[in-house]
Amino acid sequence: SILSQVVGGAVKKPALSTFSRGIQTVTLIPGDGIGPEISTAVMKIFEAANAPIRWEERNVTAIRGPGGRWMIPPDAKESMDKSKIGLKGPLKTPIAAGHPSMNLLLRKTFDLYANVRPCISIEGYKTPYADVDLVTIRENTEGEYSGIEHVIVDGVVQSIKLITENASRRIAEYAFEYARNNQRSSVTAVHKANIMRMSDGLFLRKCREVAENYKDVKFTEMYLDTVCLNMVQDPTQFDVLVMPNLYGDILSDLCAGLIGGLGVTPSGNIGANGVAIFESVHGTAPDIAGMDLANPTALLLSAVMMLRHMGLHEHANRIQTACFDTIREKKVLTKDLGGNSKCSEFTSEICRRV
Amino acid sequence: SILSQVVGGAVKKPALSTFSRGIQTVTLIPGDGIGPEISTAVMKIFEAANAPIRWEERNVTAIRGPGGRWMIPPDAKESMDKSKIGLKGPLKTPIAAGHPSMNLLLRKTFDLYANVRPCISIEGYKTPYADVDLVTIRENTEGEYSGIEHVIVDGVVQSIKLITENASRRIAEYAFEYARNNQRSSVTAVHKANIMRMSDGLFLRKCREVAENYKDVKFTEMYLDTVCLNMVQDPTQFDVLVMPNLYGDILSDLCAGLIGGLGVTPSGNIGANGVAIFESVHGTAPDIAGMDLANPTALLLSAVMMLRHMGLHEHANRIQTACFDTIREKKVLTKDLGGNSKCSEFTSEICRRV
Ligand SMILES: CC(C)[C@H](C(=O)O)[C@@H](O)C(=O)O
Ligand SMILES: CC(C)[C@H](C(=O)O)[C@@H](O)C(=O)O
Repeated sequence: SILSQVVGGAVKKPALSTFSRGIQTVTLIPGDGIGPEISTAVMKIFEAANAPIRWEERNVTAIRGPGGRWMIPPDAKESMDKSKIGLKGPLKTPIAAGHPSMNLLLRKTFDLYANVRPCISIEGYKTPYADVDLVTIRENTEGEYSGIEHVIVDGVVQSIKLITENASRRIAEYAFEYARNNQRSSVTAVHKANIMRMSDGLFLRKCREVAENYKDVKFTEMYLDTVCLNMVQDPTQFDVLVMPNLYGDILSDLCAGLIGGLGVTPSGNIGANGVAIFESVHGTAPDIAGMDLANPTALLLSAVMMLRHMGLHEHANRIQTACFDTIREKKVLTKDLGGNSKCSEFTSEICRRV
Repeated sequence: SILSQVVGGAVKKPALSTFSRGIQTVTLIPGDGIGPEISTAVMKIFEAANAPIRWEERNVTAIRGPGGRWMIPPDAKESMDKSKIGLKGPLKTPIAAGHPSMNLLLRKTFDLYANVRPCISIEGYKTPYADVDLVTIRENTEGEYSGIEHVIVDGVVQSIKLITENASRRIAEYAFEYARNNQRSSVTAVHKANIMRMSDGLFLRKCREVAENYKDVKFTEMYLDTVCLNMVQDPTQFDVLVMPNLYGDILSDLCAGLIGGLGVTPSGNIGANGVAIFESVHGTAPDIAGMDLANPTALLLSAVMMLRHMGLHEHANRIQTACFDTIREKKVLTKDLGGNSKCSEFTSEICRRV
């Protein structure tokens, strides 16, 4: 691959720095529908790249714990507690009443407070936008997702949006650290503090306070509606965006749309002390499950984010380059990317280039 | 103009049907910044089109009423109470603490429960999207805009989102009536009932119920994040969209961005018994105020919506055609539309064609 050449002719195997860290364990949650296929694709590519990862596969289906509370299966929890790092395919959303979304349950169980989605235009995959290069950082634990709701009187319902000083400061600090560590020059806080003066007001105040400690990063604030308007007119004006939970849900999907959709957008959920789960955020695509037609790109790029998180930058770059080169060359592509190849063929092509 | 020719050679003056309705009074709120200039432009074009409208100009600045409550000035309120119809330019958002947004105060004062924004691609004004033709219908009175917020304990704040059965049914009915009366084939309810199960759940349930009475209109439901994702990938799949307050704030601006921004997007706030205020939703642009550089299109198209609301379809069509023809021909355009002409020149060109 190009990168191993850049690193130097002698380096045919992963550099020593990697071996010195030893092989690390990652909890793999293949997921439902196309989940197993795209997980297999990622494992193959990791093997071809000699990534020093050992996979510990676990299934995740919500079960009822003591007192009837929904929880993830103990063996999945134990694996994550040990490995601290997870890679996850799509999970079916259960339709049973009262059953929680597994995505939400995972975020909660491991206190994954930051959802990070880099949205970067992919060369060769045409959308109406070029040169998108931004990152949405979503507060992942509170806000509109508090789950607190009441019927006040018949026909009148309230949902409570909860904003705390601690969670707001924590996500703001994460955003500025991220900007600093990833050579990004600005952070924009996205809010509706003109309407929700107290809650979004608190969030915004914490962002402003934290900004004071990061004079090397430019700080701006913008109303959510204005961000949406400006985003579809010229996304290149944005860099790192930080926002409360629901706004992040919306904006991260909007931005994914700008670069080609959830099939090519990676995502990471980050907690304290290095705990993190990386995931593709597309659906389980039951209509094509098991047919070797799925596109593994979103999960693969999420796995690349994971490698970076683990400090394995060389392997990350190598795999990312092989993936982007394959897409740019347009010879071996899955259907959704405009090609005619199978998932396994697309995967082999990336393996060949790695 | 083309339309008066279509109507027949003898008709040089507005058709009899118009006179028989007599001249109707409209309350004009010119607004701040560029507001007066673009209002003048609209009045000139209406005069050229012989629109049977008498303008009653009123300024709107929030004042303190009995008990310290903010209210709009009595003479503006009286004018609106009589005329029932308002046309409004942009208003400065006051920055004094506790001062309400005038836009919100107007919606509240006249119970303008439906915000309607048609987003239709303008021929000749290039954006990354063609053939956008959709309408966002936003619940305008409750939801996240309830204004109810509390500090629970130090550092913990809650905002209350209020959803009622009545307001949800009312806006759903408005959306389906709108679809039926405007030859639109589908209504999509936009929600996050997977997260806010009770509040958005109630909203969604009312939409479903109302849909039962409009079998001629297709009904679909979609998560807000999915709408945003799909919207930037292919807006042509959408028709009429109906949603709670905040989602409408976001989506209406997003959609405006798809067709060229707030400078070309009309808006109407509709209440019961024919009461309505039509407005341009862009800012006051203080940097170019008074310089004859402003673009009156958004206010003009809002005024066209107003004419339709009043049943004056002939005048509406005539003015709209003149405006779109002017933009398509690209000879006389304001700066923001890519031209070099002044506001007054653009206005004269539309008058000439009317
Ligand atoms: C699956 C759903 C609960 C989730 C959300 O609303 O957060 C999803 O949209 C996401 O962004 O991860
Ligand atoms: C000015 C502001 C209060 C308002 C809103 O948030 O509703 C605006 O964005 C709008 O859409 O009319």
